[in-house]
Amino acid sequence: MPQPDHIVRVPLPEQDILDDDIKKYFAKCVEKLGLVPYVLRAYTGNQAKLRNFISFYNTLMLDEETCALSKLEREMIAVVVSSANRCYYCLVAHGQAVRELSGDPQLGEMLVMNYRVVELSARQRAMLDFVWKLTKVPHEIAEADRQALRDAGFSDADIFDICDVAAFFNYTNRMAHGLDMMPNREYHAMSR
Amino acid sequence: MPQPDHIVRVPLPEQDILDDDIKKYFAKCVEKLGLVPYVLRAYTGNQAKLRNFISFYNTLMLDEETCALSKLEREMIAVVVSSANRCYYCLVAHGQAVRELSGDPQLGEMLVMNYRVVELSARQRAMLDFVWKLTKVPHEIAEADRQALRDAGFSDADIFDICDVAAFFNYTNRMAHGLDMMPNREYHAMSR
Amino acid sequence: MPQPDHIVRVPLPEQDILDDDIKKYFAKCVEKLGLVPYVLRAYTGNQAKLRNFISFYNTLMLDEETCALSKLEREMIAVVVSSANRCYYCLVAHGQAVRELSGDPQLGEMLVMNYRVVELSARQRAMLDFVWKLTKVPHEIAEADRQALRDAGFSDADIFDICDVAAFFNYTNRMAHGLDMMPNREYHAMSR
Amino acid sequence: MPQPDHIVRVPLPEQDILDDDIKKYFAKCVEKLGLVPYVLRAYTGNQAKLRNFISFYNTLMLDEETCALSKLEREMIAVVVSSANRCYYCLVAHGQAVRELSGDPQLGEMLVMNYRVVELSARQRAMLDFVWKLTKVPHEIAEADRQALRDAGFSDADIFDICDVAAFFNYTNRMAHGLDMMPNREYHAMSR
Amino acid sequence: MPQPDHIVRVPLPEQDILDDDIKKYFAKCVEKLGLVPYVLRAYTGNQAKLRNFISFYNTLMLDEETCALSKLEREMIAVVVSSANRCYYCLVAHGQAVRELSGDPQLGEMLVMNYRVVELSARQRAMLDFVWKLTKVPHEIAEADRQALRDAGFSDADIFDICDVAAFFNYTNRMAHGLDMMPNREYHAMSR
Amino acid sequence: MPQPDHIVRVPLPEQDILDDDIKKYFAKCVEKLGLVPYVLRAYTGNQAKLRNFISFYNTLMLDEETCALSKLEREMIAVVVSSANRCYYCLVAHGQAVRELSGDPQLGEMLVMNYRVVELSARQRAMLDFVWKLTKVPHEIAEADRQALRDAGFSDADIFDICDVAAFFNYTNRMAHGLDMMPNREYHAMSR
Repeated sequence: MPQPDHIVRVPLPEQDILDDDIKKYFAKCVEKLGLVPYVLRAYTGNQAKLRNFISFYNTLMLDEETCALSKLEREMIAVVVSSANRCYYCLVAHGQAVRELSGDPQLGEMLVMNYRVVELSARQRAMLDFVWKLTKVPHEIAEADRQALRDAGFSDADIFDICDVAAFFNYTNRMAHGLDMMPNREYHAMSR
Repeated sequence: MPQPDHIVRVPLPEQDILDDDIKKYFAKCVEKLGLVPYVLRAYTGNQAKLRNFISFYNTLMLDEETCALSKLEREMIAVVVSSANRCYYCLVAHGQAVRELSGDPQLGEMLVMNYRVVELSARQRAMLDFVWKLTKVPHEIAEADRQALRDAGFSDADIFDICDVAAFFNYTNRMAHGLDMMPNREYHAMSR
Repeated sequence: MPQPDHIVRVPLPEQDILDDDIKKYFAKCVEKLGLVPYVLRAYTGNQAKLRNFISFYNTLMLDEETCALSKLEREMIAVVVSSANRCYYCLVAHGQAVRELSGDPQLGEMLVMNYRVVELSARQRAMLDFVWKLTKVPHEIAEADRQALRDAGFSDADIFDICDVAAFFNYTNRMAHGLDMMPNREYHAMSR
Repeated sequence: MPQPDHIVRVPLPEQDILDDDIKKYFAKCVEKLGLVPYVLRAYTGNQAKLRNFISFYNTLMLDEETCALSKLEREMIAVVVSSANRCYYCLVAHGQAVRELSGDPQLGEMLVMNYRVVELSARQRAMLDFVWKLTKVPHEIAEADRQALRDAGFSDADIFDICDVAAFFNYTNRMAHGLDMMPNREYHAMSR
Repeated sequence: MPQPDHIVRVPLPEQDILDDDIKKYFAKCVEKLGLVPYVLRAYTGNQAKLRNFISFYNTLMLDEETCALSKLEREMIAVVVSSANRCYYCLVAHGQAVRELSGDPQLGEMLVMNYRVVELSARQRAMLDFVWKLTKVPHEIAEADRQALRDAGFSDADIFDICDVAAFFNYTNRMAHGLDMMPNREYHAMSR
Repeated sequence: MPQPDHIVRVPLPEQDILDDDIKKYFAKCVEKLGLVPYVLRAYTGNQAKLRNFISFYNTLMLDEETCALSKLEREMIAVVVSSANRCYYCLVAHGQAVRELSGDPQLGEMLVMNYRVVELSARQRAMLDFVWKLTKVPHEIAEADRQALRDAGFSDADIFDICDVAAFFNYTNRMAHGLDMMPNREYHAMSR
């Protein structure tokens, strides 16, 4: 059964027409990750949008100065939101990130399939219950839900960041579904 | 019945501690719009995130060089996604934008309440049906849905932008719900 | 964008063939409200049904002898039920009524868009939670839900009336959706 | 297992305090049907409302001059709407009516349980598909749905009446759920 | 209105080609029940599968040595699961079984239409709430749900059996829906 | 993060008390598969039920004489049903089976996460669309759905088997959810 070999279902420009800063950034990706994530390739038709995406993403997922959530926690949110939305791209890419950051391949699988089967700490369970609800029935989120996060030890700044990460993957999931975005195949074998 | 007077349900810093570029940007907002949209105030606890948001938003909603959708069409998408998600903040702010850009207050109301009652062009109906589906059942979007956009006259670049705008309001709606974000009251009376 | 100018999607008789009592009633509407609500016009194809509708409606929404709910509370229920059902006609007509009776235009908007963002009294919150549930998942209403109303200060007679108003707008919403009923345009500008 | 012996979960007045016209109407019910339907008893706390209900109901379900739908078709709609809403009272009372009017006890059962298993005429299938959709997702009803009724042979006046009957049982179902209304036990054994 | 006279929507072999053990079993059914349940006839195209079904079913529903749930309780579960799934075959066949085993025809009707209206013991209510949830949102079942069964007096072995019966009717309901399986008409009149 | 080490959330007997035929069968499992699937261990509290399960399962999934679906097709159905129901046990165990039988690890991942992203043959797409619908909205399956299978080349016997496999995993998924059944950890690393 031949698998898809597209990145998205709209045409993309040749990579050699990209601006130099983008070319350099892609080279850095290859150096660090061994690949240019296809989500970045997907934006190459509009480099202004690509730059915004990179900047937004890097602050959201990687910044450690202003965001107190661990990188693993952010990736766990990414996977659980993507599981709720059944987003193939993000489940593959961020499932791999969870396997890598946690050193626990089974945890990645569980979050992809059904986060409720994981034996989570009260803190992480509260966090993932919140992001599942925010994804599925956002208009039903109430002060009691924020309070549950506070009761589990999260600060108000953490609550902002939890919302931000969860909301963002509701963005990326819809970009991936809307464009039928495929992940780089290399992710599948990594960190097993 | 006293109405809410908060911006979000997490504490925000005093405005005078903000960096100069942000202060200038807010001053420009007041000059142009008569107000600083509360969604910007909501990010002042993390100015790196605020800068990303502004940059992302402005390219997405205002850029006319690389995006061929009209500003009104982008605002129509914003309202319909926010209607699907029942997001008070975005319905108020972007409902006002539709009223202003269309010069048709009733159109704004209809999109807020039920876009299916509007007598839309085939192009706009296809666009709004797509974004409603992408919002409500993203994993069911298929090539047939993209083809329906092409059949209605949209280019592949337009499809990218339609996905982008629709996906982004799935982000902002969840920030607003997650933080109980209130809109500036001034919007209610504008463009009636 | 030309907006709809129909009342419903089935033909209606000329108004001059209506019976005298109906003509008089419509004249009284014009005198009091400045218009004949289109929902009444929608029934003119069957005047026996129109008379039943008027009588039912007036007791339900206007009677102050046997029903202890305030008129504003009844209109709040009407709007929240219509929001759950995304009914354009009733949101426009009864949203206006809430704006007028409350003197608070923002309250009308909030109930249309998402009643959960309003800072309601415990009594009104209990009332609106009940009617939302009765609208969306009627078969899940249980004694605990009625008890929540009693705990919020409602009498058994009030409970009957809350059910009656909420149930009735589940009727009218479906008449409006089924016939694509449009509201009089005058409502939009009133009580802003 | 003792079964419920209440009519509704709010107190009702003694029957001897009722006004004479109501007493006479109830006597006529006993004469014709062998019972006073509990739904009428349920309204005895507010006789103005009871009179409205009786008048509305009788025109809707029994009038043969202005409504061209057969009584059986109206009862079929009643049962299918009540099946969608899982309303015990209306399924019992109107399931019995279908059994009686059709002379086909199995038809009553099928409509209660899943109308899709009945081998219906194209006309009746179109009618029941319409009322199921109007009940479950009223905001998705579109001109195509009305056209399907016309294509199946219904007039515009019939469409008005189909909407009216379907919408009304969305009213009564919610009164029954809201008040936990029980049907007269006699219905169970009738017309088997 | 002629009712369906098929068993399933795929062809079945003549009964005389069946193996002797099956013929004998069917004869025993006629002797005991007065009929061969059509669900058994439905499997005659694959007698190995038929034998598995019979064996599975008989242990599940009839064995009294290793399963402590009463036969009536098992049938109540069957009906409530089938009500959730709106399965005509199983509602007819097992609704009859509830009527017979309970000697209470009304109980059978109530479970078919909406089990929440029955005045159940705490034990039976807990059991039926569990199987409804396991049917409708299986991935949301949590330890708290199992604990609610224990609190209502069920043993761990009972919990295994409750899951087993509820899960099995999620199997049979889908066989019946998938094949449009009709029940023997004799069930309708039995145990009224 | 320590992962769960239970099989199910009800106590199981020691394995040495099992009957000889079961012990032999388990030994054969170890010989062939390298493990005793935990789903079999889960039934050891009731060996009559365990024997039924084994017999039912083996005919359903392994028999090649009377069932024309390939083993891979049956496993694909198992995974897609389990994805719809978000069943961790079955996704792990049968996801591994798809990886092994197809020799395509990515196919297993795609079916777990969202089967719609796979570039399936028309035959397999029809099959998986059918089982998804049968799982999620069984009461909406209609003759048109069976016809779509016939149009894709399936025989009536195949349709029976497709229903059977899909229905059965609606059984096992609910056993797994109801008992919080964990898969053997060995599956995770197999066939990557």
